[in-house]
Amino acid sequence: MEHPENDEKYKGLKVNKGVTDVPSVSPYLMKNTRQKLYTASEFAQGIFRGDIAVLSQAVTLIESSKTEHQKQAQTILERCLPHSGKSVRIGITGVPGAGKSTSIDTLGMYLVQRGHKLAVLAIDPSSKRSKGSILGDKTRMETLAREKNVFIRPSPSAGSLGGVARKTRETILLCEAAGYDTIFVETVGIGQSETAVHSMVDFFLLIQLAGTGDELQGIKRGIMEMADGIVINKADGDNIEKAKLAASHFRNALSLFPPTDSGWKPKVLTYSGYYNIGISEIWEMIDAYIAFTKANGYFAYRRNEQAKYWMYESIHNMLNSAFYQHPQIEDLLPQMEQKVLNNEISSFEAARQLIDLFKSLP
Amino acid sequence: MEHPENDEKYKGLKVNKGVTDVPSVSPYLMKNTRQKLYTASEFAQGIFRGDIAVLSQAVTLIESSKTEHQKQAQTILERCLPHSGKSVRIGITGVPGAGKSTSIDTLGMYLVQRGHKLAVLAIDPSSKRSKGSILGDKTRMETLAREKNVFIRPSPSAGSLGGVARKTRETILLCEAAGYDTIFVETVGIGQSETAVHSMVDFFLLIQLAGTGDELQGIKRGIMEMADGIVINKADGDNIEKAKLAASHFRNALSLFPPTDSGWKPKVLTYSGYYNIGISEIWEMIDAYIAFTKANGYFAYRRNEQAKYWMYESIHNMLNSAFYQHPQIEDLLPQMEQKVLNNEISSFEAARQLIDLFKSLP
Repeated sequence: MEHPENDEKYKGLKVNKGVTDVPSVSPYLMKNTRQKLYTASEFAQGIFRGDIAVLSQAVTLIESSKTEHQKQAQTILERCLPHSGKSVRIGITGVPGAGKSTSIDTLGMYLVQRGHKLAVLAIDPSSKRSKGSILGDKTRMETLAREKNVFIRPSPSAGSLGGVARKTRETILLCEAAGYDTIFVETVGIGQSETAVHSMVDFFLLIQLAGTGDELQGIKRGIMEMADGIVINKADGDNIEKAKLAASHFRNALSLFPPTDSGWKPKVLTYSGYYNIGISEIWEMIDAYIAFTKANGYFAYRRNEQAKYWMYESIHNMLNSAFYQHPQIEDLLPQMEQKVLNNEISSFEAARQLIDLFKSLP
Repeated sequence: MEHPENDEKYKGLKVNKGVTDVPSVSPYLMKNTRQKLYTASEFAQGIFRGDIAVLSQAVTLIESSKTEHQKQAQTILERCLPHSGKSVRIGITGVPGAGKSTSIDTLGMYLVQRGHKLAVLAIDPSSKRSKGSILGDKTRMETLAREKNVFIRPSPSAGSLGGVARKTRETILLCEAAGYDTIFVETVGIGQSETAVHSMVDFFLLIQLAGTGDELQGIKRGIMEMADGIVINKADGDNIEKAKLAASHFRNALSLFPPTDSGWKPKVLTYSGYYNIGISEIWEMIDAYIAFTKANGYFAYRRNEQAKYWMYESIHNMLNSAFYQHPQIEDLLPQMEQKVLNNEISSFEAARQLIDLFKSLP
């Protein structure tokens, strides 16, 4: 779609160097009067050119809760959409301690050294975004953070999972328009976020450690069945045999799972993120998966399903906000919940009374 | 809550013998003019007395989509609620061919012979209810069907999963008020229904067959991780060793799963539904689970969570119906979906436009 009123204003883009990670509502977008705000067209041109500073600011618009920012973000997104979709999107999960950051660092460097452009995003609805944690993200992936072909962006700031996930998904689209051919989306493996990530990636990688029982403590049930690949980290030194044994246990477990929708049989590999062992095998697995699903049509099918899923997910979130954020509903809800728990009213009748109230409200 | 206007009308209840399974909208409730309709109070008294015919008619009201029936059903439910909750609710799933009916027959008879009262319900949103399939359900469980302490009710007729599941959940409550101390809720293990069942039972039993791979073909991914117990059927004759081997495979797989919320370690047993082998061990497992979760407080906690879950689930379904069944939304939705697939508009923007339209509608 064309926006001539914006195009007209386009006169070449001033790049705002060094602004790669700006806080959720960037002072740049509002207060820096020395610099005029970019038009949607300028944003899009900057993104197509692969300008990291412009991309960062566009992501900030996506993450902003201000109505005018949201509006501009959607216009930018609309321009970027025809140029999106050309990356491989990989979800990476694993509990804290599994060595996720080191692994992403090593996996990412493997790609960068082979000429790829990599964006590393995250979904963590619990994250309180602050200067500290942004720096933290950069420090965690110290090698990648120095690479010019790498765009690292921490999770959008705390909010509803639906909102945070949408923002990450839209950021994927912008990154693709900016030429990033591989996207990592990281989660912590302990919450609901994995389902959201699973709904926006092509391949879902689960990082595990050797051993059974305690080490798995943190991983949420159900996540294992989402994995297209399970990789056992820290397969180095004295730990190699233990990791191999764990891998064979996981392989047996996976063989009991029903087939995946894609027809792909999830693989189990061992590696060492720290010592850079087994990294090429992980990439061979992912490449094989992409080739396999592109050949059988699942890749395109799933991308379409995901696009629809996010439309319905957004409808769902907006309907829920309208309902649950209505002051009178907010007031009544705890009482209704209590009545249900006291067996004074059925769950259904409580719902019906709340919905009737909602419908009667202006 | 008291309804004096109904109590006043109560003069003793005429029982409509022989009507145990009536079609979704019972002609009895509307057309049989020789017999006056029961009041909510009469229904409740009949249910408390354990009258199967009255219980059946109340369930029919719950399943009816007529507004007046729904209203009366909710009044009956309200009276039954204080008398509900005292059963053990068991979800049973397994693919067609796993021997589910025979197993339910055998498991149920074990209970009945020990003085229990058993209700067997089902959730199958795809089921087309007809005289045929009702008879089918009775025939499938031929021994149980002859027992007076057993109430067998097929799945509510086809509809949305949410609707069908709600009806089954409300039927559980009525059955409990009628004195049934054990409730089976059966599903086919191939759809979304398992999550719904999981949200209304105390114990989730997965019936499997020996062997790996092909036999699991039909079970949906994720279901295994919901199971509190996996039981391998047809462990008889030549098949015993194979079943034991399968059990040990499943045990290994389960040991790799993270702990359950209840703290219970899911068990794997072998049995034969047809030859009545290993049935008492299954009941010992379920009894142990109930004792364990009652002792650690999880049993009550989960029942409360489930009651709240169904309130929110009902709100969700009602909001969705209001939106998706609106004619103008129904018209526009396919076009919006296509625009999203064509990359003409973002998923979020499509949702926003639809929600804006919805809000502007009367």
